[in-house]
Amino acid sequence: MPNSEPVSNNLGITPRAENYSDWYNELVLRAGLADYSAVRGCMVIRPHGYALWELMQRALDDMFKATGHQNAYFPLFIPKSFLEREAEHVKGFAKECAVVTHHRLMADPDGTGLMVDPESKLEEELIIRPTSETIIWNSYTKWIQSYRDLPVLINQWVNVVRWEMRTRLFLRTAEFLWQEGHTAHATYDEAEQEALTILEVYRRFAEEWMAVPVLTGLKSEVEKFAGADHTYCIEALTQDLRAIQAGTSHHLGQNFAKAFGTQFQSQEGKLEYVYATSWGVSTRLVGTVIMAHSDDKGLVVPPRLAPVQVVIVPMGRDEETRSRTIEAADRLAADLRTQGWDGSPMRVHVDKRDKESPGFKFNDWELKGACLRVELGPRDLEAGTCVIARRDTGDKTTEPLAPGLPAKLASLLGEIQDGLLRRATEMRETNTRRVDTWAEFEELFSGEKAPGLVVAHWDGTSETENEIAERTRATIRCIPLKGLQPEDDQPGKCVLSGKPSQRRVVFAKAY
Amino acid sequence: MPNSEPVSNNLGITPRAENYSDWYNELVLRAGLADYSAVRGCMVIRPHGYALWELMQRALDDMFKATGHQNAYFPLFIPKSFLEREAEHVKGFAKECAVVTHHRLMADPDGTGLMVDPESKLEEELIIRPTSETIIWNSYTKWIQSYRDLPVLINQWVNVVRWEMRTRLFLRTAEFLWQEGHTAHATYDEAEQEALTILEVYRRFAEEWMAVPVLTGLKSEVEKFAGADHTYCIEALTQDLRAIQAGTSHHLGQNFAKAFGTQFQSQEGKLEYVYATSWGVSTRLVGTVIMAHSDDKGLVVPPRLAPVQVVIVPMGRDEETRSRTIEAADRLAADLRTQGWDGSPMRVHVDKRDKESPGFKFNDWELKGACLRVELGPRDLEAGTCVIARRDTGDKTTEPLAPGLPAKLASLLGEIQDGLLRRATEMRETNTRRVDTWAEFEELFSGEKAPGLVVAHWDGTSETENEIAERTRATIRCIPLKGLQPEDDQPGKCVLSGKPSQRRVVFAKAY
Repeated sequence: MPNSEPVSNNLGITPRAENYSDWYNELVLRAGLADYSAVRGCMVIRPHGYALWELMQRALDDMFKATGHQNAYFPLFIPKSFLEREAEHVKGFAKECAVVTHHRLMADPDGTGLMVDPESKLEEELIIRPTSETIIWNSYTKWIQSYRDLPVLINQWVNVVRWEMRTRLFLRTAEFLWQEGHTAHATYDEAEQEALTILEVYRRFAEEWMAVPVLTGLKSEVEKFAGADHTYCIEALTQDLRAIQAGTSHHLGQNFAKAFGTQFQSQEGKLEYVYATSWGVSTRLVGTVIMAHSDDKGLVVPPRLAPVQVVIVPMGRDEETRSRTIEAADRLAADLRTQGWDGSPMRVHVDKRDKESPGFKFNDWELKGACLRVELGPRDLEAGTCVIARRDTGDKTTEPLAPGLPAKLASLLGEIQDGLLRRATEMRETNTRRVDTWAEFEELFSGEKAPGLVVAHWDGTSETENEIAERTRATIRCIPLKGLQPEDDQPGKCVLSGKPSQRRVVFAKAY
Repeated sequence: MPNSEPVSNNLGITPRAENYSDWYNELVLRAGLADYSAVRGCMVIRPHGYALWELMQRALDDMFKATGHQNAYFPLFIPKSFLEREAEHVKGFAKECAVVTHHRLMADPDGTGLMVDPESKLEEELIIRPTSETIIWNSYTKWIQSYRDLPVLINQWVNVVRWEMRTRLFLRTAEFLWQEGHTAHATYDEAEQEALTILEVYRRFAEEWMAVPVLTGLKSEVEKFAGADHTYCIEALTQDLRAIQAGTSHHLGQNFAKAFGTQFQSQEGKLEYVYATSWGVSTRLVGTVIMAHSDDKGLVVPPRLAPVQVVIVPMGRDEETRSRTIEAADRLAADLRTQGWDGSPMRVHVDKRDKESPGFKFNDWELKGACLRVELGPRDLEAGTCVIARRDTGDKTTEPLAPGLPAKLASLLGEIQDGLLRRATEMRETNTRRVDTWAEFEELFSGEKAPGLVVAHWDGTSETENEIAERTRATIRCIPLKGLQPEDDQPGKCVLSGKPSQRRVVFAKAY
């Protein structure tokens, strides 16, 4: 029997109210989602955490393919000279590059160890991709000759490296996993349409799968992607009331086409530069979904992304009763897989460990975020019932072990999925404030704790944005495509400068 | 409409008989499977090639999960000191390591470019993983304390880098994609069972999915994995009669557990070292399947791995007839997807390009390896028929456009899948020879061309193996678990030394 999930340390985790940051780290470690590694800033994604990521990948990949995209794979290495070609792009990434300089080790003449073989120095250093625009556009330049070669709609699922100094499991790591889409179009408008199509895919995924409501909007000039014409984003709010950027979709204009000489013959026979987009979401989404719903007992995840949707715990004091409850549990598990939920076989686990008590198991699966727990004891069997406990609300009910049970459990999963989104949406509404005076703004951002989303007028200049950030550590998370309330789209006066503002934007302290 | 597959250059490719190596490279490039990149030895896997790899991944991943394995992700970087810990392991990989030495770029004071910031030198160099035993066993040492934590059955799908000097698209590249399984067990026998379970998964995958017959056997001491106790492998034969190692499964003994101090408390309370396996297949499988079945017209792939199983080419000289054949084509495509084959919706493409002639399209899809082509012209529509062409045999038949058509096409896909395996098996049988004299052995390996598989006696020593390799470039591909013929398992005399041999082994020139 496989047992890749070592028994978790079930001593409880720090409550959120005591120390949110400790709560998060302990939850991730103890629930077996991830672990620190021996390499600074790099994490190990453990099977339980990776299962969550795989479910995210599958759903997103289906959505990308349904919108006409194909997967491919481009090299890990980027020649240093490629990074240099797009001036803004390189500024954004040069300070956090892992650089490969040699290609061989040799025995250290002074001892028994190894040293870098100086003879193996590369003529040109290679950068581990922090993002792949440059290496990809080098290929696109070869592939695109005519309007008939357009659009190119390619995505890749890969690892990237950004040498971050302050790292956090899932949320910010030196190496992370992501998908990056890179598309090429004949016109500005087509690229704009693509960037917005993907933004909508991301919004739907966040809300319908992660049960996390997100704002969709534009990034300011200060916050946009290095090398983009403009950047769209989805932004979520965590339980400690910080904003978290969950995905970005960039209109790159002709910047990379010009840097790499990517021209095509138009239908009219003219030579023109190609328009581009790029877009990505990463394993940061795993951190986002953990933070969004979990509680002091451990992980809470929406059923559509839960590695274990239903855990069945068969009980019994002796071999004989245990074998009967295990048999009933296996039968129920088979029924649930057949019945399915949300178009897939239900993800069910029967916990047959014989060294652990039921109480230990209940805590363990609360820690690991099984959405529903079915308790099956000898007395339940006799009475023809079982006890069902919901992970999100903690509610327990007794249900008959009858043919209708799978449908009942399926319907509960649906309720949990909807309930989590509702709760997160209410939380966001409660913590969104419209602020019109600098005094109030400064006061809100003055404490240790973050104040949630602050919707305020801004004069549109980077100077003001930077000054606000310096004075309060608040940043503009996005300029919403559409205000949360109609009044947000009305003009007003900047909360700091008093100058005219076209519309309200969203400020927050961010991860 | 997506068009990530630029129109292929349809000038024909070099025939196999003329130059097999050129044939392969041109096929890979022109069919849009892969491309060279700007980085030495690294390839771009284009959407058509990546689709093939995704289908392989899906099938293998399902098989791994069905045998109790879970996926995870470990860091790309390996500290240099980790590599040093297992003496044999480091010997095998030190000479082909990409080494990260710095983590920042800065403006070059002498110009406008970038240079490595000398201040950012790492205290310890990081190696891009050539394989992940060392970084993974560092984690396992933390995770495994007791027999209850065993077995650990983990796999990861990742990129790895081995700085190869002579590279070949898909078959040998500096960076490649693979899966690597890493398992931990309480006993030698359990690890042995695991290594053999995976060998059988690989064999089944090669034969049932790739339609490539493989030998299963042990590697010799010379050829085994650096750090393994012993290595099992699957070996295939290409059309140019070279052997190709398609997958390996290693019993690592306690070598890595001892190097990393991975001990567990046994059921009897004793502290013992853990036993390990590791196993992997890579994007080399894509090259293997391309080589196995393709012909001078282009790609031939078995239907279970074909990105496009059926291409429908609607024809017509004018808008009006074209719109009628396109409509019929779309209807048929929808039927085929509903009918499915092999448990999945059929992978169907309707080629609606209006700038290309039918003849161009026929060639193009032969190049790209669609298993079946359905031709739908106005006269076919009137007659209520269509023409079906098989990619493997070139056979063309006329079939009624009737409700039975999807079942007919599904049955043809089954025939193609079986037929390719049969043909490849016959090819291998024809090119397998039993040789008993050194004169004959040397003669067979003396030409430019490879002679296929040569089954001969060997005295079991590395000296003889090395001498044979030096004199003929023939290597021992495997010591079969079970002879191809009963006589292969009988004792005899070494083909070179004349010393006693326990059984025949398989020699070949290898990729």
